[in-house]
Amino acid sequence: MKIALVVGTVVASQKEPNLEGSRLLILKNVTIDAQVQSEYVVAVDAVGAGAGEYVLYAGGSSARQTEATHNRPVDAVVMAIVDSWEVGGVEKYKK
Amino acid sequence: MKIALVVGTVVASQKEPNLEGSRLLILKNVTIDAQVQSEYVVAVDAVGAGAGEYVLYAGGSSARQTEATHNRPVDAVVMAIVDSWEVGGVEKYKK
Amino acid sequence: MKIALVVGTVVASQKEPNLEGSRLLILKNVTIDAQVQSEYVVAVDAVGAGAGEYVLYAGGSSARQTEATHNRPVDAVVMAIVDSWEVGGVEKYKK
Amino acid sequence: MKIALVVGTVVASQKEPNLEGSRLLILKNVTIDAQVQSEYVVAVDAVGAGAGEYVLYAGGSSARQTEATHNRPVDAVVMAIVDSWEVGGVEKYKK
Amino acid sequence: MKIALVVGTVVASQKEPNLEGSRLLILKNVTIDAQVQSEYVVAVDAVGAGAGEYVLYAGGSSARQTEATHNRPVDAVVMAIVDSWEVGGVEKYKK
Repeated sequence: MKIALVVGTVVASQKEPNLEGSRLLILKNVTIDAQVQSEYVVAVDAVGAGAGEYVLYAGGSSARQTEATHNRPVDAVVMAIVDSWEVGGVEKYKK
Repeated sequence: MKIALVVGTVVASQKEPNLEGSRLLILKNVTIDAQVQSEYVVAVDAVGAGAGEYVLYAGGSSARQTEATHNRPVDAVVMAIVDSWEVGGVEKYKK
Repeated sequence: MKIALVVGTVVASQKEPNLEGSRLLILKNVTIDAQVQSEYVVAVDAVGAGAGEYVLYAGGSSARQTEATHNRPVDAVVMAIVDSWEVGGVEKYKK
Repeated sequence: MKIALVVGTVVASQKEPNLEGSRLLILKNVTIDAQVQSEYVVAVDAVGAGAGEYVLYAGGSSARQTEATHNRPVDAVVMAIVDSWEVGGVEKYKK
Repeated sequence: MKIALVVGTVVASQKEPNLEGSRLLILKNVTIDAQVQSEYVVAVDAVGAGAGEYVLYAGGSSARQTEATHNRPVDAVVMAIVDSWEVGGVEKYKK
């Protein structure tokens, strides 16, 4: 998984029928020092995440292992909202 | 998923039999500021997308989770046509 | 999928038994302007492709969705021979 | 798989229910000369690894092939703690 | 698949139980001109490969399609030992 920041949303009305109701979030990867990077990914929200929150997302087939994404054509899912993380005992982020 | 622009098509008459009838689109990745990048991917169309449209595509095994791609040897599928997206509350693209 | 040029072959006599008879092609990725790149991949041939032909290959688990590759430890398959492709209405390659 | 160093942990209380109890480790990739790189990944611990240990992690669907990760939305798992490795007969690391 | 050179081994006594007995090889990618690159991967050996041999490895879920790796948390497998390869009719390597 990667840590990312929720920065936006995508609206798409014409889509695979089983994606109806999925929230599509735009995430930007962050470094472990909490610096936001330019690289982004669009992921389906499985945990009620919102703009400005740090989250974990999983990619590939693992992205379909949530109720929100089961058997759907999505390759990235937000499966956790991050409270905090530490590196070498030093807190790098706390919500 | 990634946001991409449909820029072209591929014709391939000699192919796996179960790919008969699949539309093969050439997509170029775009940044979240809607700038078109040089990187491309060829994806099967599952939603009736056409040239000049912004779309979402999914890769890997998730690309086979549509009616158009089930059990077929394809690793990228267009599964949504994008209406709009916003970053930090600012609309970056609207159809 | 990616468009690639068939440039060579690999011979491997000591291998997983279920790979017996598989043709192993060396592919070089091409840009959408048909320029050959240095990056390569070794893929199993599922469609009778030969040196000098432009092909489409699929990677990951999708590479096992052909008769030639089913249940085999291969992560790339040539699943189509390209006749032509166009970008923005301009033909970039025709066989 | 890749060799990585365990450098930190992530806390996430709001997450997919089946992730309850999973330990989320921050790993930094290392070169085969045991130099720590900036690239990181967040992986679920399946073997009781701790900070400062060199580990192997697996990605993609293979990350779900442990008791700790079965059917869960995780795309990276620590599946071994490294005792030592050698390159060309020269020991590069020993615990 | 990629062509790689077997350059070393990893020892890991504390690991997922079903990895008991797996040989963990360190591979370095090679170019199609047989030049060894710095990038490495750790793969399970399924064909009896040894140091100094050129091999093919498969990644992702395809890495689990051998007897040695079935249902195990490994994302790379050596599934063939290379005898030779040619590019444009020119032999680049012969064992």
